[in-house]
Amino acid sequence: MTFEVTILGSSSATPIYGRHPSSQIINHHDHIHMIDCGEGTQQQLQRFGIRANKIRHIFISHLHGDHFFGLIGLLSSMHLVGRKEELHLYGPAPLKEILDLQLYHSQTTLRYDLFFHPTQHESPAVIFEDQLLRVSTFPLSHRIPCTGFRFDEKPRQPKVDMEKVKALEIPPVYYPLIKQGKGYRTADGDFYPSAELTIPSPAPRSYAYCSDTIYTPAYVTAIWNVNLLYHEATFLDEMRDRAEETYHTTALQAGLMAFETQAKELLIGHFSARYKQLEPLLEEASSVFEATQLAKEGATFKVKYAV
Amino acid sequence: MTFEVTILGSSSATPIYGRHPSSQIINHHDHIHMIDCGEGTQQQLQRFGIRANKIRHIFISHLHGDHFFGLIGLLSSMHLVGRKEELHLYGPAPLKEILDLQLYHSQTTLRYDLFFHPTQHESPAVIFEDQLLRVSTFPLSHRIPCTGFRFDEKPRQPKVDMEKVKALEIPPVYYPLIKQGKGYRTADGDFYPSAELTIPSPAPRSYAYCSDTIYTPAYVTAIWNVNLLYHEATFLDEMRDRAEETYHTTALQAGLMAFETQAKELLIGHFSARYKQLEPLLEEASSVFEATQLAKEGATFKVKYAV
Repeated sequence: MTFEVTILGSSSATPIYGRHPSSQIINHHDHIHMIDCGEGTQQQLQRFGIRANKIRHIFISHLHGDHFFGLIGLLSSMHLVGRKEELHLYGPAPLKEILDLQLYHSQTTLRYDLFFHPTQHESPAVIFEDQLLRVSTFPLSHRIPCTGFRFDEKPRQPKVDMEKVKALEIPPVYYPLIKQGKGYRTADGDFYPSAELTIPSPAPRSYAYCSDTIYTPAYVTAIWNVNLLYHEATFLDEMRDRAEETYHTTALQAGLMAFETQAKELLIGHFSARYKQLEPLLEEASSVFEATQLAKEGATFKVKYAV
Repeated sequence: MTFEVTILGSSSATPIYGRHPSSQIINHHDHIHMIDCGEGTQQQLQRFGIRANKIRHIFISHLHGDHFFGLIGLLSSMHLVGRKEELHLYGPAPLKEILDLQLYHSQTTLRYDLFFHPTQHESPAVIFEDQLLRVSTFPLSHRIPCTGFRFDEKPRQPKVDMEKVKALEIPPVYYPLIKQGKGYRTADGDFYPSAELTIPSPAPRSYAYCSDTIYTPAYVTAIWNVNLLYHEATFLDEMRDRAEETYHTTALQAGLMAFETQAKELLIGHFSARYKQLEPLLEEASSVFEATQLAKEGATFKVKYAV
């Protein structure tokens, strides 16, 4: 089952060196979600061949411009190209007023239904759920209200072990019950528990997005043990004071956070304009957490099953 | 004296085919002005090596997103890179509320002085003036309030004809008076009118920007006889009905407008997403007004002196 992250923007604050402000696409089983939407995101979608109209959910972490100034343009373009499918938007409450004001003055009535779901930054909360996935917010510690997002796959039922059930001549009508955990008793009176008749599905995967935040243990529990952690790494650790002043994280701290929360893999992004070359940031995070990669724009990262 | 237009965006409505929404830079004698600021304009400035901090005046024609969604990002980036110089912004009154709301929720207090000058779309008005240039608005006819902009050089004093004044041994202290139109009487009693002692400066040049608008005689007077006319040409004339419905202009109509208003040269832009190739639009406008060019992004067009 597909579960992957495509980076659209990796820059903090301002676009520079061809890098764009924050945005990424989460593809889970061909359900397309977007996290953050900095200026130029709709152009990035075009560049990487991702169809904007496939996006069903957009999650905005906070109201600094580099995380949402591209949203009004994206929503407007969806309208202009005739989108009909509903769209769900999650973000801080004032975002609705900001969008409404601009739509009002351009005399635009969106042709599709836009459902706005305000988020809060006081405590973790489940904000979206379907059969396969659960999305939650958790508080980050930034200069203004900000949340992270965690995507958790739901546990899937085991598969029926076809070899075994056929050998025992179990009628297919029993398969759904067996998958749900019921055992089966044969005509001979032998009892087979569900676990003997099924192949377990792989453990559910999880992804967490942490941008922007100071390095603090406050969200350790919320991102515990994810398969892939995206964490901002705005500065090198020699700029730790600056990171604290501006409520950002250093690459070393991002690595430590991945290590401490037992993440399987780490993706770092939200790079400061002071770094034209990103390898030093990668080296620094990797020094404490080896399975680290740079969130390069256009690259897609799989959320892998734990082995 | 420099007077030129650099195109940053040439697309209508949505970015497509690598084309960006409306924006352009007017350089008059190294005073840098911007007209409109669609999404991604700050990236376009970077691409073409234009320093955002040199911009002193920004003029916004109307509140459709493809003409101003890049403004908040540009203003924010100017703040983030430490701009100190004041900036003057001209546009429809609600623009201020839209910007203020976003700055408020991002808890941003701009480090530079931003002066907002609301425009009105009822009648022509001079909105900016310095020693060399006058900028005016005039009403266009679009779905929402919209103005065009006209940039007029002010007439310059003639130059003193150095050969003549030296031959007549006129003391330099008289030069400023001669340039202002006073004549000079020699010791012999001969009188030389100013016109005989000076070389006239070239006639002042003018540039007009018309986007977005339906084709109507209403603004013919306002753009009369400019050296360079930028006019939207959203559609081919086969789409004239669609142009009227959406309050836009066809390439043929843009050519006619240039012809009727005795423009010297025409630049067409604001191309619909339906045209991947732009040559047919150019051919159509050129068929009625030969001195037409496409507003290609990154290209700079001189506002030429009339010959």
